[in-house]
Amino acid sequence: MDKPVLKIIKIGGNIINDQKALKAFLTDFALIDGMKILVHGGGKRASEILTLMGISPKMINGRRITDDKTLEVVTMVYAGLLNKNIVSRLQALNCNAIGLSGADANSIRAHKRIVTDVDYGFAGDVDAVNSELIGQLVRTNLSPVFCAITHDKNGQLLNTNADTIATEVAIAMSNDFEVELNYVFDLQGVLLDIDDKDSVIEQINDKHYKKLIEDGIIADGMLPKLHNCFNALRRGVQSVKIGNANLIKSRPNLFTTLSLE
Amino acid sequence: MDKPVLKIIKIGGNIINDQKALKAFLTDFALIDGMKILVHGGGKRASEILTLMGISPKMINGRRITDDKTLEVVTMVYAGLLNKNIVSRLQALNCNAIGLSGADANSIRAHKRIVTDVDYGFAGDVDAVNSELIGQLVRTNLSPVFCAITHDKNGQLLNTNADTIATEVAIAMSNDFEVELNYVFDLQGVLLDIDDKDSVIEQINDKHYKKLIEDGIIADGMLPKLHNCFNALRRGVQSVKIGNANLIKSRPNLFTTLSLE
Repeated sequence: MDKPVLKIIKIGGNIINDQKALKAFLTDFALIDGMKILVHGGGKRASEILTLMGISPKMINGRRITDDKTLEVVTMVYAGLLNKNIVSRLQALNCNAIGLSGADANSIRAHKRIVTDVDYGFAGDVDAVNSELIGQLVRTNLSPVFCAITHDKNGQLLNTNADTIATEVAIAMSNDFEVELNYVFDLQGVLLDIDDKDSVIEQINDKHYKKLIEDGIIADGMLPKLHNCFNALRRGVQSVKIGNANLIKSRPNLFTTLSLE
Repeated sequence: MDKPVLKIIKIGGNIINDQKALKAFLTDFALIDGMKILVHGGGKRASEILTLMGISPKMINGRRITDDKTLEVVTMVYAGLLNKNIVSRLQALNCNAIGLSGADANSIRAHKRIVTDVDYGFAGDVDAVNSELIGQLVRTNLSPVFCAITHDKNGQLLNTNADTIATEVAIAMSNDFEVELNYVFDLQGVLLDIDDKDSVIEQINDKHYKKLIEDGIIADGMLPKLHNCFNALRRGVQSVKIGNANLIKSRPNLFTTLSLE
């Protein structure tokens, strides 16, 4: 029997920071037919509130160090402010959204990142996704909206990369669903030339991907993003695409499709 | 056929503000057999964060005025920080908690309080509880944990009294469940003499209740609390009790039982 289709869309902070873009995105998301999940990143509000509270953001190698005060603020902003605003706006668009952190219904269990050279603090690496629970929700026509907060099942909340959450949820759900995973960001796709926004590479397979890394075309922030994409494909996710917010509309659009072969 | 029993416990800010008391309460809550729902109030962290952000709490007649900045902070603190911490701690105690605001799965719809003499801002009065969804969750052994945030189904979040949420959820669920509603606060029950903490009135019926109001025994904050209790009883809730955190343990304990007759 064919597996039912489940669409998983991840949006980043750039959409969340732009009220007009967020509104347009949520309108499109609500219009998607069938089962769907939204995963959202953070945006600048957490940094603004950290600053208001007199806490300077601590970054190492471009990654946030999550100390206890930072965890408090990201929990407030991601799981509270952003998640509930997104959910209430989707509800207004007749999309039956339900906001979740990984702690809720033990939906995503993680562990505090092991300290090697850098101590990232309360950063979580995902161990297990409760695909049974998530499957139960989507089958009853609810659309889970995940924020980037997980837990360790021992009472500790953890700040977790939203791309990774989208990837891990997609992999876990692909046992029972044909999963279409879409990463929505501020570009139309992976660019051949970073200075030419129209130089979208429309197809990247595994061999091509390794070559693009060697050639330095895929670099910086695109490295972990594409690592997540190919990880998803290798572990059973049917379809992975990267593009801008137009990606999720049914009409033709420029974006990057990733594939193994 | 007998309706299944559903226990609904409401805790206030006094327990949330006291880490030791909260830990003890959550341990007891996790041990409750059968289907259960937790509703939690706010606590002092929202006021602390408002102050840190340079916003002075605005109160009229002892009630908070929820302007847009205050709504942002209570959404962060109640739906994010407090709700997710409570959920993750219950998960550690093997209670399969799922945190919800009223926006999530459209579980509690409200409207912005109509302005008469006082404009309370983004304060919500409850219109509808999605008892079908909540019933579905509790029947699959999930324990909903509600924070005091609702929505109007038009994209607006609303700050809503936690006692009222507990009452309205209890009333809605009483169609399909035998609901036991328990208000947990810092006293052992309703006191005959406010200066004597042991002067708990163990039983209050509707007639007695009216007399206690006339005599000024029930006054101030107890007025809306008992109004909620009798509202619940009149609209089908089987059992309503008020007491301290020991109320939810099975062992004998002093508390106030409300009844119509």
